[in-house]
Amino acid sequence: MIIVLKQNTDEKQLAHLTDWLTSHDLDIQTIKGSHSTVLGLVGDTSSVDIELLEALDIVESVKRIQEPYKKANRKFHPDDTVIKVGDTTVGGGTFTIMAGPCSVESEEQICSIAQSVKESGATVLRGGAFKPRTSPYAFQGLRADGIDLLIEAKEKTGLPIITEIMDLSQLPLFDNVDIIQVGARNMQNFELLKALGKTDKPILLKRGLAATISELLMSAEYIMAGGNEKVILCERGIRTFETATRNTLDLSAIPVLKEKTHLPVIIDPSHATGIAAMVKPMSLAAVAAGADGLIIEVHNDPRHAKCDGAQSITPDSFDTLAKQIHTLHGIVKEMY
Amino acid sequence: MIIVLKQNTDEKQLAHLTDWLTSHDLDIQTIKGSHSTVLGLVGDTSSVDIELLEALDIVESVKRIQEPYKKANRKFHPDDTVIKVGDTTVGGGTFTIMAGPCSVESEEQICSIAQSVKESGATVLRGGAFKPRTSPYAFQGLRADGIDLLIEAKEKTGLPIITEIMDLSQLPLFDNVDIIQVGARNMQNFELLKALGKTDKPILLKRGLAATISELLMSAEYIMAGGNEKVILCERGIRTFETATRNTLDLSAIPVLKEKTHLPVIIDPSHATGIAAMVKPMSLAAVAAGADGLIIEVHNDPRHAKCDGAQSITPDSFDTLAKQIHTLHGIVKEMY
Amino acid sequence: MIIVLKQNTDEKQLAHLTDWLTSHDLDIQTIKGSHSTVLGLVGDTSSVDIELLEALDIVESVKRIQEPYKKANRKFHPDDTVIKVGDTTVGGGTFTIMAGPCSVESEEQICSIAQSVKESGATVLRGGAFKPRTSPYAFQGLRADGIDLLIEAKEKTGLPIITEIMDLSQLPLFDNVDIIQVGARNMQNFELLKALGKTDKPILLKRGLAATISELLMSAEYIMAGGNEKVILCERGIRTFETATRNTLDLSAIPVLKEKTHLPVIIDPSHATGIAAMVKPMSLAAVAAGADGLIIEVHNDPRHAKCDGAQSITPDSFDTLAKQIHTLHGIVKEMY
Amino acid sequence: MIIVLKQNTDEKQLAHLTDWLTSHDLDIQTIKGSHSTVLGLVGDTSSVDIELLEALDIVESVKRIQEPYKKANRKFHPDDTVIKVGDTTVGGGTFTIMAGPCSVESEEQICSIAQSVKESGATVLRGGAFKPRTSPYAFQGLRADGIDLLIEAKEKTGLPIITEIMDLSQLPLFDNVDIIQVGARNMQNFELLKALGKTDKPILLKRGLAATISELLMSAEYIMAGGNEKVILCERGIRTFETATRNTLDLSAIPVLKEKTHLPVIIDPSHATGIAAMVKPMSLAAVAAGADGLIIEVHNDPRHAKCDGAQSITPDSFDTLAKQIHTLHGIVKEMY
Repeated sequence: MIIVLKQNTDEKQLAHLTDWLTSHDLDIQTIKGSHSTVLGLVGDTSSVDIELLEALDIVESVKRIQEPYKKANRKFHPDDTVIKVGDTTVGGGTFTIMAGPCSVESEEQICSIAQSVKESGATVLRGGAFKPRTSPYAFQGLRADGIDLLIEAKEKTGLPIITEIMDLSQLPLFDNVDIIQVGARNMQNFELLKALGKTDKPILLKRGLAATISELLMSAEYIMAGGNEKVILCERGIRTFETATRNTLDLSAIPVLKEKTHLPVIIDPSHATGIAAMVKPMSLAAVAAGADGLIIEVHNDPRHAKCDGAQSITPDSFDTLAKQIHTLHGIVKEMY
Repeated sequence: MIIVLKQNTDEKQLAHLTDWLTSHDLDIQTIKGSHSTVLGLVGDTSSVDIELLEALDIVESVKRIQEPYKKANRKFHPDDTVIKVGDTTVGGGTFTIMAGPCSVESEEQICSIAQSVKESGATVLRGGAFKPRTSPYAFQGLRADGIDLLIEAKEKTGLPIITEIMDLSQLPLFDNVDIIQVGARNMQNFELLKALGKTDKPILLKRGLAATISELLMSAEYIMAGGNEKVILCERGIRTFETATRNTLDLSAIPVLKEKTHLPVIIDPSHATGIAAMVKPMSLAAVAAGADGLIIEVHNDPRHAKCDGAQSITPDSFDTLAKQIHTLHGIVKEMY
Repeated sequence: MIIVLKQNTDEKQLAHLTDWLTSHDLDIQTIKGSHSTVLGLVGDTSSVDIELLEALDIVESVKRIQEPYKKANRKFHPDDTVIKVGDTTVGGGTFTIMAGPCSVESEEQICSIAQSVKESGATVLRGGAFKPRTSPYAFQGLRADGIDLLIEAKEKTGLPIITEIMDLSQLPLFDNVDIIQVGARNMQNFELLKALGKTDKPILLKRGLAATISELLMSAEYIMAGGNEKVILCERGIRTFETATRNTLDLSAIPVLKEKTHLPVIIDPSHATGIAAMVKPMSLAAVAAGADGLIIEVHNDPRHAKCDGAQSITPDSFDTLAKQIHTLHGIVKEMY
Repeated sequence: MIIVLKQNTDEKQLAHLTDWLTSHDLDIQTIKGSHSTVLGLVGDTSSVDIELLEALDIVESVKRIQEPYKKANRKFHPDDTVIKVGDTTVGGGTFTIMAGPCSVESEEQICSIAQSVKESGATVLRGGAFKPRTSPYAFQGLRADGIDLLIEAKEKTGLPIITEIMDLSQLPLFDNVDIIQVGARNMQNFELLKALGKTDKPILLKRGLAATISELLMSAEYIMAGGNEKVILCERGIRTFETATRNTLDLSAIPVLKEKTHLPVIIDPSHATGIAAMVKPMSLAAVAAGADGLIIEVHNDPRHAKCDGAQSITPDSFDTLAKQIHTLHGIVKEMY
């Protein structure tokens, strides 16, 4: 950690600061320039509150040298994390396609889509039971019944299932769910993250609309600090000034995350763009950029989807796309 | 609601659409231009899913004419909402100053600050018991004990108290809390909002870092739809590309909200800027822009605050500032 | 164009408005809802000032139905624009790779890089002569001498050249330049755009850091309205809150632009990310997303590049990448 | 300047780097931590290219300790800059109100508004002659004729005038203009900035839509480095995800700029919000936050303004507002 002091530092305050730092078992090395003085702290700074330091009258700025996440940090865990889900794995060279409807609506709907996406090559079934909706007047999902229907589809098809949790009180309902999804709006619901850290379920953690990559990794760290290291990261678009797409899909997050962490990275082109016609180009781009998988909305009748129909593709389009994705992945993986 | 159709609309699909709209008790009025056709829907469109419509092949875009919030909408409730809190009120011409430390740390700390800010003119005591921290390794607050200490400070000073809830399982602990705060990261924790809608406590709802003003109002609507209309809105900075301040305080949200809603609007200059020296100019600016109040972090020893010391001002600075705020409010309220 | 009127519209003001609209040869169709009235304008609204309408007391909002660009609009020009540059073409199925150093530094440097990138498969040589630098104290480019050196490299290798113009007074120096580049910071330098509209040179127009896709197309329209329809669009990253990359590369702009316009779309992964290691994944992703080409910084000795070395790859890396790009493009073009 | 090296640095590369730094007359101080090594550079680093350093294989990140602007930096020029304009001054305690129409439209229009705003208390007349418009089909201003009309209004009223330059070729027309405005879209038109640095006219430099405060100061530095230190900074809203206002007015830029620079700071509430009704609250907020002045659009008939009517207030509203501004400034200046 580097502390830049203000000009004309008060000597007494500086002595207080260095005493306090030394009491934290930190070694201090000082660099004096013509206009400012810099303190370099050597030792374990993870317990040092950066904002507390910034608060001091004599401090101009503070810069961390080490990332504040450890368990999620590739520096300390160079090998890719591979997560077992049912008979398949996520990460480590496999390309995972999670597919299914935005919302679970009926037994017939979820089972027929499950069968269809399985035949096309999906390895995980997605479907929303608890739905985070901006409006209290919009359809909120089938909730517990939706999870039951997903489990039925899993039994019929053998596909492992992923669905979103919205509150930690819902956790007991997720016993037979294979991957628990944390939505973008809950990425910093820290009480939920802590509870999930106590489970042994794989967690798909979606990046918040305004979350930096570093904050995404800190949220993964919350789960991992609790003991559950099975975290899958998901980029699903960030909020920017551009309105041509619902959000701006940040595909450069893939190589950034690949460098910083060992956790698998999945892309959600459906929510990122909000436009069915853009699912294909963004899926192919994600494969080419080195993602470990995709999570794609598929609906047998997009016109009657109870939510987010705009971003769902049909089973036919998905069938073509899934083949293209696998073809592309076969070629691209030789390029890295 | 206005639906813009694509060029060369398929007649059969159009017939399907108009049938479906008519079945929702909507009247359709058509405007034919040279390059596109526009459908105007007359009737209650609140049950119409805008994203479903946008998903249709024949639809280019959809525009809502009516706001999707009702209970929070000034059009339907022209008079300002005034919320009783202890012996004071929020909204309706009173200027409210909520003040106190970022975190409750000890009995002595919270009681002495409470006494001090009361003498300076604060009418509500703030203090964090449950703390949302980016890092799992950072101080997480005294939690239940922190709430007990706040209640003690309330008993000693008579100041009503506000503190943040992070999960609905914590709700029973808030019985003696006067205002429940929902933090920016939980603005779209819809399960929590629904639970708060069933209480009769005033709720201070903070705007999310990437939330539009319209989304803030939709989150208020979630609480109000449950029956609890005592919602106080709080602007606390949005996330932008600028890094000179922690977030960008959007003071223009004040007049926008004043036009769109009848709910009181409070500004948090401490979290918005993250810099103690900027609390004063942004507080005065908020008063001048027509806010109903401020929530300000005050700490007796910013150097030892367990979190967010950077943004806390001292009791002395607060004393001066509170007087300036009241002076300014007295003058400004005659200007509107 | 759709005009939404405020509640309780003043009849006299409304009459003024309808008179004024009628005088612009517009037909007015009215839709009356319970809470608001909507006017639909039929006819050529391109001369109507949307902001003037929004200024009226009785108007709540205005929505354009037709895009405000015509010459750049695919609706009116369905076929892809193909632009001849030297012996090659940009757009229409060819995949263009423009490559070269950030700055032209010496004859030896530019000629050796030109030879090298040509052998690797680049079809256009890029190199900066006039350099827009944030700091007045940074290297500003070789300016006119730089252009002379580029022309020399062109003569030696036969590669057409692209370089950036920073002010219209520099235009006479661009006689032997094959493609004139307008940088992100000049995307809305309207006087420059107008002057370029009077030339017959292909123009590569870079998207501004905070420019919407619609604004990019309006800037293309400026050039095209002057008579020069040879515009190549370039996405090079937009400014967001994320700091892990220099900017956020918006690859979803590719399919959006492909739908809205007939102009070719080129991606600049070097400036977008600012990190050499990310040029490859973002290049491959751009190919997969359907781009018409790439513009890539290559430097024989990145350690001594006078500017932007961080984002330059070596000729060796470029050689491998160019082959991968062409392999990928061969496969991807069959997928669209 | 601080250089953080990557783990396991190659010794030979490190030797190259330290040699190169030493050859730039920089002293190197090394801090070795357990996971990384930090180099502190002491000496004048303004000639060191930060991006070149970041490009090196062995470098993880670089942090400037000194700001890269000197002439604009309050550290080296602690006293407020006061700029003489006609008989008035900008900065140093005076509160400046610049007012006038968006566009100059006719002699009668500009002279009557000039007379009116002068009587209300404006000290500078603003009016657009060259108009930057997003659409090539929109009114582009009266150009040279507009400047002539402004000069006429100046002669009649004695008010100094400010108007926008869009290209350096227009400079000869600005001989009798008192303040030359550089618009947001030209904030990084470096050729224009250099040309203005050679004049002795006061320059009002508007912050770009996506420009950081630091970049605004670097653009001021461009002008000042040329010899012209009469720069007035203007915050006019930045581009964010929020669409309720045209841009997001960043009032916290006022105290940030006041700390970092000695140059005067003016706020433009008209362009920032794009809504006439919001000019007043944002003007009063700007005064309270410590601005040195305001630039406000006033139009005698907003319904017929040729551009940006939405954001113009009437002379009557301006008259009331100007009085409130002066009242408020009188009180607020005692609070700082």
